[in-house]
Amino acid sequence: MDRTFDAYLEELGKLDFSDMFNNDFLHTWDKTTDELRALYLVADALRNLRERNISTRIFDSGLAVSNFRDNSTRTRFSFASGTNLLGLQQQDLDESKSQVAHGETVRETATMISFMADVIGIRDDKFIGEGDAYMREVASSVEESWRDGILDHRPTLVSLQSDSDHPTQSSADLLYLINEFGGLDELRGKKVAVTWAYSPSYGKPLSCPQSLIMLLTRFGMNVSLAHPEGYDLMPELVERAGAYAAESGATFTKGTDMAAAFEGADIVIPKSWAPYAAMEKRTKLYAAGDAKGIDELEQQLLAQNATHQDWCCTRELMEKTANGQDTIYMHPLPADINGVSCEHGEVESEVFDAHREGLYKEASYKPYAVAAMIFLQKVKDPKAMLKALEERGVARWVSE
Amino acid sequence: MDRTFDAYLEELGKLDFSDMFNNDFLHTWDKTTDELRALYLVADALRNLRERNISTRIFDSGLAVSNFRDNSTRTRFSFASGTNLLGLQQQDLDESKSQVAHGETVRETATMISFMADVIGIRDDKFIGEGDAYMREVASSVEESWRDGILDHRPTLVSLQSDSDHPTQSSADLLYLINEFGGLDELRGKKVAVTWAYSPSYGKPLSCPQSLIMLLTRFGMNVSLAHPEGYDLMPELVERAGAYAAESGATFTKGTDMAAAFEGADIVIPKSWAPYAAMEKRTKLYAAGDAKGIDELEQQLLAQNATHQDWCCTRELMEKTANGQDTIYMHPLPADINGVSCEHGEVESEVFDAHREGLYKEASYKPYAVAAMIFLQKVKDPKAMLKALEERGVARWVSE
Amino acid sequence: MDRTFDAYLEELGKLDFSDMFNNDFLHTWDKTTDELRALYLVADALRNLRERNISTRIFDSGLAVSNFRDNSTRTRFSFASGTNLLGLQQQDLDESKSQVAHGETVRETATMISFMADVIGIRDDKFIGEGDAYMREVASSVEESWRDGILDHRPTLVSLQSDSDHPTQSSADLLYLINEFGGLDELRGKKVAVTWAYSPSYGKPLSCPQSLIMLLTRFGMNVSLAHPEGYDLMPELVERAGAYAAESGATFTKGTDMAAAFEGADIVIPKSWAPYAAMEKRTKLYAAGDAKGIDELEQQLLAQNATHQDWCCTRELMEKTANGQDTIYMHPLPADINGVSCEHGEVESEVFDAHREGLYKEASYKPYAVAAMIFLQKVKDPKAMLKALEERGVARWVSE
Repeated sequence: MDRTFDAYLEELGKLDFSDMFNNDFLHTWDKTTDELRALYLVADALRNLRERNISTRIFDSGLAVSNFRDNSTRTRFSFASGTNLLGLQQQDLDESKSQVAHGETVRETATMISFMADVIGIRDDKFIGEGDAYMREVASSVEESWRDGILDHRPTLVSLQSDSDHPTQSSADLLYLINEFGGLDELRGKKVAVTWAYSPSYGKPLSCPQSLIMLLTRFGMNVSLAHPEGYDLMPELVERAGAYAAESGATFTKGTDMAAAFEGADIVIPKSWAPYAAMEKRTKLYAAGDAKGIDELEQQLLAQNATHQDWCCTRELMEKTANGQDTIYMHPLPADINGVSCEHGEVESEVFDAHREGLYKEASYKPYAVAAMIFLQKVKDPKAMLKALEERGVARWVSE
Repeated sequence: MDRTFDAYLEELGKLDFSDMFNNDFLHTWDKTTDELRALYLVADALRNLRERNISTRIFDSGLAVSNFRDNSTRTRFSFASGTNLLGLQQQDLDESKSQVAHGETVRETATMISFMADVIGIRDDKFIGEGDAYMREVASSVEESWRDGILDHRPTLVSLQSDSDHPTQSSADLLYLINEFGGLDELRGKKVAVTWAYSPSYGKPLSCPQSLIMLLTRFGMNVSLAHPEGYDLMPELVERAGAYAAESGATFTKGTDMAAAFEGADIVIPKSWAPYAAMEKRTKLYAAGDAKGIDELEQQLLAQNATHQDWCCTRELMEKTANGQDTIYMHPLPADINGVSCEHGEVESEVFDAHREGLYKEASYKPYAVAAMIFLQKVKDPKAMLKALEERGVARWVSE
Repeated sequence: MDRTFDAYLEELGKLDFSDMFNNDFLHTWDKTTDELRALYLVADALRNLRERNISTRIFDSGLAVSNFRDNSTRTRFSFASGTNLLGLQQQDLDESKSQVAHGETVRETATMISFMADVIGIRDDKFIGEGDAYMREVASSVEESWRDGILDHRPTLVSLQSDSDHPTQSSADLLYLINEFGGLDELRGKKVAVTWAYSPSYGKPLSCPQSLIMLLTRFGMNVSLAHPEGYDLMPELVERAGAYAAESGATFTKGTDMAAAFEGADIVIPKSWAPYAAMEKRTKLYAAGDAKGIDELEQQLLAQNATHQDWCCTRELMEKTANGQDTIYMHPLPADINGVSCEHGEVESEVFDAHREGLYKEASYKPYAVAAMIFLQKVKDPKAMLKALEERGVARWVSE
C-alpha cells in the first residue's frame, strides 16, 4: 500500500476515459479533458510502481513497432523504454533496409508489420500535412485489416511527433509541471510564456509550440504566445487554443514581444521554430522536386532568422518573470545554447545551466507518457489493472 | 478446451516427425510429408493459442540471430514476430556494422554469434548456388562447434530464403490454402497455375516459384507451370517436382502459354522471375567482378522482359479460371501492379484490389510458419508441449 | 545440487567484493584481487546454471544500452547475449541515427538514454585517452543525474573496450585459462608470452596486450612481453604490470625477441598492435583535422610494420614453447592468418587450425564475463542470489 499510489487510483475512479481502450493517440486535441487527466494519472502511477520496483508488464510477448522517419534519440529511447516497461519488444521498421516497394501502399506495409504488433509508434514531422495524413492512413489501414479478419487484434497507434502535434513531449512537459506544482489543478491561473527563440539552424518543427498552446490552455493556464512577425503557427490551431482558453477560464494572448510574454510568467518555454508559411512552401518545393527552390528558401529563412538574434532567453529576460532566475525554464532538448552548441542560440548558457536539473526531469517523464498511452489503449479497466499489478508485486529487478 | 485445437493435436499424434528435433529447416524437400504436415498443424495450433491469448513462450531468455544479406520487410518482421512469440530476442547480424574480417571463415563468424543463440535465420537469395551453400556451411559449422564442446547446445537454422527455396513463404502459402479450403486433404486435385508474369525490374529470385512447384505437387495438387521460352527454373527442381506429382497422383505440366495454365485453375500464382541461365551467368560475372558484363546482361534481360508485357494477370485471364474473378489469386508481395507501382506489371489493379484481403491473409501465416519450424526444432514432444501450454494458460496480453 | 556450482559459491563466500555493487567496470586495475576472483566465480556459476538450463533472469524488464563507437561483432553479440541472459533488452545508441546535437554535452545524452537503463556498455577504443575519458564522463554524468533525483536508480557502466583496457576480453581469456588449467591458483608460475605479431593492417588497438599484462601478472603468471623496437605500450601501464608481478611473486620481462619470449612458454598470445607514440600522434592529427598528416602517418606505419614480417607465430616458433605444438595459443579474433586472410600475417594457418577449438572456447567466455560484471553490479548478495536462482529452478528453455 502506498498513499500516493492510492490517491492516483482514487482520482482515476472519478474520470470517464473508456473510449481510450483500443483507440489511438494522435493528438491531445482528439481527447477529452477526462482522458488527458487519466493519462497523467496512469503515467504517475506507472512511475510510482517502477520506483517501488514493481513490474508493470502486461505483455508476455508482443512487438512494439517504431517507424522513425527522422532522426531521434530522446523519443526513440522513450519509446523503447516505455514499451519495454510493459513487456513489449521494440522492432524498428527501418525503411532504408526494408523492401518497401516503389508504389507499395501504406495499407500494405502497415498490415505486413502488424501481424504480431500490439502498438505502432510513428515519428513523421518533416512536411506540413504529411505526418498527420500518414499516421491516419496507417491507423485506418490496420483498423481495416482487423475488421477484415486479417489481423487478430488491432494494433494501436501512438504519435511520436507529427507536423502538427508532439503529444508525448507535451504530456511529459505537463507531467513535469504537475509534479513540480503538486497537482494538475495547481496549474490553473499560472502564466506560461511560449515564445520563439533564435537558432542558427532553420526549419525546426512547429509541433512543439503547437502541442503546448493546445494543451496548456485546456487546464486553465494563461498562455502568452510570442514570436517575431511572420513566424506564425498553423492558424486553425492558434484559433482552437484561444477557444480552449476561453472554455477553461484562462487567457491566451499573442504578441511579437518576447519581454512582454516573459513579464510575470511562472513558466517560460522559449524555442525556435520555422514560419508556417515557409514550411508550407517547402513542402510544395519538395513535392515538386525543386532543389534550387529549396536551397533559395533555406538561405532566405536563415537570413530572416538572423535578424532575430535578440530572441534569446537571457538572465536579463528571466528577471522579468514571476520568480526571476528561479522561474521554471523548459525546453524539449537539445537546446541551442550560446557559446556551447553555437555562438548565438535560444538560451544563455548561465540560464541553461541553472535549469539543467529541471530540464532533465522534464525529459524523464516521456517514457512514462508513452507507456501510459499504450496502457490506456490496451487495458480495459486501467484502475483495476494498476491495483492488480501492485498486488501481484512481481519485482522488476531482483537485486536481493 | 477448444475443439479445433484438440483436432490439431489429434492429427499430430498420427504423424512421425521426430527427426525435426534439433535439426534445421533449409528446404521443404529435405522433409518427409509427415514432417511437413506436422509443420502446418503446429503453425495452426500456435495461431489458435495466440488468438485465444494464451502465451506460447518456451524460452525465458535466448537469442534468435538473423542475417539478412538482402533487404526485407515481410520476412524480417515474420522472423522477429515468430521468435518473439516463443520468447526469443531477435539480434540482427548486420554485416555492415560488424567486424567480420576479410578472410574470416564462415565457421568463425557462425560460432562467434552462437554462444547464446537458439536459432539462426538466414536470407541469402541473390546468387545461384551461394545462398544454399552458405546456409549449409553455417549449419555444419555450429554443428561442429557443438560437437567440439564449444557451444553448449546446437542453434538450429531456418532458411529465410535461399536461391533455390523460400520455405517460410511457401509454407505460409500452403497454410493459407489449408485454411481457405478446410484442410490439407481438400487441396488434392485442385489445379494451381504457377506462372511467370512481366515486371519492369529484372532478376527477381527463382526461389518463389521453385518453392511452390516443389511443395504443392507433394500434396496432390495439379500444378501447371508456365513461362515464356527461356525463363526456365533450375532443371533438377523441375524434374523433382514432376516426380513428386507422380508420387502423389497429381499432374505437373509445363508450358509457355499463360492462358492455358489459367484455364480451369482453382488457384493462380503469377509472378516475375529471372531466367535461370541468366542468373547463373550473372553469378559468374559478379565472381569475376565484370561490371561491364553485369551491366550488359541487365540491359539484355530488361529488353527480353519487355517483349513479354502480355504476361499480366488481367481480369480477362481470370475469367478462364475455375471460379472467374473469385478464383484465388496469390502473390508473396509486394506485387508490381499496373498503374500503381509501374505502368505495366504483374497484375491489373482491379484484380489485385479484389484479392487484397486474401493476399494479406496469405502473408499473415508467415510468422506462424517461422514459429512452427523453430518449435519443432526446439521441443522434443511438440504435441505434449502444445497441450501443456494450453493448460498453463498464461495470458499473452493481460488486458483485463 | 551440483558439486561444481556449490564449490563456486563456497569460494565466493571467502571473498570481499561488496564495493562492486552499484559500481562500474571500466578497468581490471580499478578492482581488488578479491573482486576479480569474484568475477570469475560468478561467470563460471552463471555458465553452470545456463548449461543446466536454469534461468538466471534477475530483470523482468529493463534496458541494456550499448554504444559502439567502432565496428564490432564478437563484443556486440557478447553484450547482447550476456544482458539477455539476465533479462535485459539491448538497445543500441546508434549515433548516426540519433539526434545528438552538435555541442550536446555528454551528460545530456547520457541522461536522456538512461531513464530506464540498468546498464550501459561502451566501446570506444580508437583514440588514445579518449575512450577512457568518455566512459568516465558518462559514468559521472549518470551518477550525478541519479544523485539529483533525475534517475530513479544509477545505471552502471561496463567497458566494452577503451584505448587502455579491454576487460571483457581479458576476463574471457582468464576464464578460459582457469577452466583449462583447473583453477585460478593453477596459473601461478605459468609462463605467458604476450608478443607483437605482424599484420598488414595498421593501428590495431593497444588495449588487448595492455589488458593482458595488467591482469595476468596479478595472479602470479610470469609474463614475457616482446615487441619490435618502437612498438611500446603505454609506459605507465607497463610499469604497473611490473609492480603487479612483483606483488604476486611473478616475473615480468620485456624484450624485442619473439623467440626468446616463446622459449618455454606455457601459453603464447601473439597479436599485432600499433606503436603507442604513433597512436598519440594520430590522435593529435585527427584533433587537428590534418588529413594529409594522417595519410602520411599511415603510410609510414605500414612501411614500418612491413619490416617486421618475421614476427609471425609459426610452427617452428611453437617448438620452442613448453609443450611444442600443444602449448596454448590464444587470440581475441579475428586473426590475420597467413594465406587465409592475407599473404603474411600474425599466425601460420597450421598453427591457427590446430588451435581453433581452443580459440573458440576462449571466445565463448565473453558473454559470461559481461553477464558476471553486470550481476555483481546489480545484485547486493550475489552468492545468495545464485543459490536462490538454482533453487527457483525456472527452465531457460522448455524443451520437454
